[in-house]
Amino acid sequence: MKIFKIFLQTITAALLVFTCVFVQAQDIKVVYHVNTDVNTASAILGNVRNHLSADPNVKITLVTHGPGIDFLLDGAKDNKGREFSGMVSDLAGKGVQFRVCNNTLVTRNIGPSKVSMEAKIVPSGVAEVARLQAKEGYVYLKP
Amino acid sequence: MKIFKIFLQTITAALLVFTCVFVQAQDIKVVYHVNTDVNTASAILGNVRNHLSADPNVKITLVTHGPGIDFLLDGAKDNKGREFSGMVSDLAGKGVQFRVCNNTLVTRNIGPSKVSMEAKIVPSGVAEVARLQAKEGYVYLKP
Amino acid sequence: MKIFKIFLQTITAALLVFTCVFVQAQDIKVVYHVNTDVNTASAILGNVRNHLSADPNVKITLVTHGPGIDFLLDGAKDNKGREFSGMVSDLAGKGVQFRVCNNTLVTRNIGPSKVSMEAKIVPSGVAEVARLQAKEGYVYLKP
Repeated sequence: MKIFKIFLQTITAALLVFTCVFVQAQDIKVVYHVNTDVNTASAILGNVRNHLSADPNVKITLVTHGPGIDFLLDGAKDNKGREFSGMVSDLAGKGVQFRVCNNTLVTRNIGPSKVSMEAKIVPSGVAEVARLQAKEGYVYLKP
Repeated sequence: MKIFKIFLQTITAALLVFTCVFVQAQDIKVVYHVNTDVNTASAILGNVRNHLSADPNVKITLVTHGPGIDFLLDGAKDNKGREFSGMVSDLAGKGVQFRVCNNTLVTRNIGPSKVSMEAKIVPSGVAEVARLQAKEGYVYLKP
Repeated sequence: MKIFKIFLQTITAALLVFTCVFVQAQDIKVVYHVNTDVNTASAILGNVRNHLSADPNVKITLVTHGPGIDFLLDGAKDNKGREFSGMVSDLAGKGVQFRVCNNTLVTRNIGPSKVSMEAKIVPSGVAEVARLQAKEGYVYLKP
């Protein structure tokens, strides 16, 4: 049985090393959970930009619901009167993903055509925030 | 040593597949961290309902502390004058769990008898939010 | 091949037990994500104290950015006129770590010398919140 014992230890060690190396090497995936109103959107997009500057390999997905979807609607402007669409396109070009909650669209009677081309509509914002963490290896951030 | 090498690779592969299948198949567990006042409770319970509709197998636990416990106190009403108790019972019947922070009860001098029968009192809300994630496989959501 | 099958099952079981025991035994690490203004700081530090009381082995790191850094600046006071420095030193003495976002310092034109000696400056608060979760095994809490 001694050979079995050594073998077991070897495999355990190898798998631990493998797992550690794998975890260390993987790029970070972050879900930004956005459900605050349009006045908070500029600061949130600023956070995303700073995050990308600090870690260019990070994969960021913004999941929006409730008032959080507003900056992704057609013609949405910040409090200086600038449209969000430019900044959203810019971030999308850098790999940032945007998701909008369909429950919110239905409740607020907003047609999908009003939603930014850069955003993908998902059935439920909260379910998506949970799914990304539980099934896709995302970590969470509420900006 | 060649047989050992093949064997190690086989086991590693098998464990990876096993882990992946296991992770994919598991139901999602989500802790809703609630420490905002009673005016936010209707929207939060609406989020929980939507979450359950989108993913009927999800296990949701609301951990409340500070002003977040108020909708779970006897006679608590929303801003339309409706008692929260009905909605809380309804969600509890669907498997949603409610937890109330004992530190908050002590600080605010609220007796445990004032707390909804559907809720379980835990020593510390923040410690419970952390424990569920670190030890019970929950993901996090701040509504 | 039967011996191989038994062996594989044994190793799988052993690794699962090992992993479970390992996860159970580990101390919990929590990142408190703080980006709300100085009026919320007393309650947040109260949460941290309660958390430590409930779980003395917990490792807590506060990552601050935006208005969240203010209680860590020289001479910062709560709304009763008491300096935060005493409470910060006290918590630091209990192993709590404080981190301040350099992007915030630059944007707000605040010199590093204004930051509490107890705090460590990190390049980006949001990137640090994500990194601690993805690479250091922290769970998340937004107080």
